Amino acid sequence: MVDSIVDILLIEDNPNDVELTMRALKKNNIVNNVHVIMDGAEALEYFFADGKYSGRDINLRPKLVILDLKLPKVDGLEILRKIKSDETTKTIPVVVLTTSKEESDIVSSYKLGANSFIVKPVDFEKFITTVRELGMYWLLINEPPK
Amino acid sequence: MVDSIVDILLIEDNPNDVELTMRALKKNNIVNNVHVIMDGAEALEYFFADGKYSGRDINLRPKLVILDLKLPKVDGLEILRKIKSDETTKTIPVVVLTTSKEESDIVSSYKLGANSFIVKPVDFEKFITTVRELGMYWLLINEPPK
Repeated sequence: MVDSIVDILLIEDNPNDVELTMRALKKNNIVNNVHVIMDGAEALEYFFADGKYSGRDINLRPKLVILDLKLPKVDGLEILRKIKSDETTKTIPVVVLTTSKEESDIVSSYKLGANSFIVKPVDFEKFITTVRELGMYWLLINEPPK
Repeated sequence: MVDSIVDILLIEDNPNDVELTMRALKKNNIVNNVHVIMDGAEALEYFFADGKYSGRDINLRPKLVILDLKLPKVDGLEILRKIKSDETTKTIPVVVLTTSKEESDIVSSYKLGANSFIVKPVDFEKFITTVRELGMYWLLINEPPK
């Protein structure tokens, strides 16, 4: 059970991408609390304080969720649908970060309420830069709800 | 009638903020086409190709809308409600840029589907930097729907 403050919730099943993303975020020196969840079912348990996260204080909301689309058990679009249609979770900013460039994934994500959609750069350096800018924008420029 | 490609639609009634925002965006060298609308009623005409914008090609969508909340005729929250509940306009990214720090404005904006909420910095230099980062994020990092 996680009951500390989480700035960024990273929902990503690829260990290499988790490592790269964490490295890029840490470089900013603005992110201390990143919590990683590697499958979709556990992500839903986190949001709704269920199962493994039963008893978690639901009022402690991440400032940002970074969401991959292809996930084990429950996929990213289904997670989006669930959290963006629930009054307690719908205002949490969610950025989709995925290898997919499919127009149908882009449109579906926005329609379900994704705040932003980013295609993972293939190039290593570009990936680091992109994630760093993503972190800076959402943690330093954007104003999340309390 | 505007029938060229608009990268950013800026909906802002304060001439000083329009000038500052334009200056910050131009500094990037990434934004060529910014269209400014100074009241809420005209903004709705733009989105729905009505009145002054009758006959505008509705398939030419801005990559980003920067929306002030306090506007003459129709306020920003009402514009958000209209464009985020219409299938043809709901996937256009909208960033609220306002002097308001009211939690009720922040929560209402996100609930109505704002993609991001930014409080206008009072400091001149900070304002320029914030708008520049906003422009870079949404035009270079984010992937809008086609």
